[in-house]
Amino acid sequence: MNLKRRSRSGWAGSVDEGSGTIALGSGVFEGVFSANARVARETASTNPEELVAGAHAGCFTMSLSNELTEAGHPPQRLDTTATVHLERRDEGFMIPRIDPEVTGEVEGIDQARFESLAGAAERGCTISRLFAGAEINVKATLAAG
Amino acid sequence: MNLKRRSRSGWAGSVDEGSGTIALGSGVFEGVFSANARVARETASTNPEELVAGAHAGCFTMSLSNELTEAGHPPQRLDTTATVHLERRDEGFMIPRIDPEVTGEVEGIDQARFESLAGAAERGCTISRLFAGAEINVKATLAAG
Repeated sequence: MNLKRRSRSGWAGSVDEGSGTIALGSGVFEGVFSANARVARETASTNPEELVAGAHAGCFTMSLSNELTEAGHPPQRLDTTATVHLERRDEGFMIPRIDPEVTGEVEGIDQARFESLAGAAERGCTISRLFAGAEINVKATLAAG
Repeated sequence: MNLKRRSRSGWAGSVDEGSGTIALGSGVFEGVFSANARVARETASTNPEELVAGAHAGCFTMSLSNELTEAGHPPQRLDTTATVHLERRDEGFMIPRIDPEVTGEVEGIDQARFESLAGAAERGCTISRLFAGAEINVKATLAAG
């Protein structure tokens, strides 16, 4: 099975004074972005880095549901935050590291098993494999039942 | 300079019957996704792959504006579509390839120079470097002036 997913971006003007848009292929979202907002500590605009964080959080979380389902413990609830680290280095901006942190409500398993399945979910996730340029550190916590 | 960008994902239930959400850290978008919609040929739901396509299209397009600005030719307009190829292989789903295709309105340069700067933009883009697991093929076309 081969699928193609497309998204679009437009830009008008110089890098510092111009601005752009990013539109997802499904049509559910289009947002503006700019160079200044991209490197501001806080921003209300979208940016490529938070899209990467969203892609990874989504892929990892669905992958963990898959691991838990196959182990006979489909989750009541999983909540993941993925943090993308953007660093300015001599050679330019880099993303050296992404940290997905998941909390789960899952019946019938213990913390050690949850951590183990979270590790497998990270390794098996399509988006993790794409991000071969970054270190990925998973933290998994089972909520008290 | 170090920045962190975060996005969140939640999931409830088994991988096939449950569903999830993806919420971008800036707060500008939250959408639902599911395993079935993720592998459907056409889908009106978001998915990790279109978020990856959007991140790459946005980063590449801003990077190309940067190259053009530094060359003394800030663009009137750039329009990019990034296509992410998702393939099922024996070892699971893979993204072997991403194709960004850009059309530009830029005064004072020719097609060969535009293609050369598009190549440099792809190599310099933060998100391209993160996607070390994929082949990236740029196609760049200068609109007739």
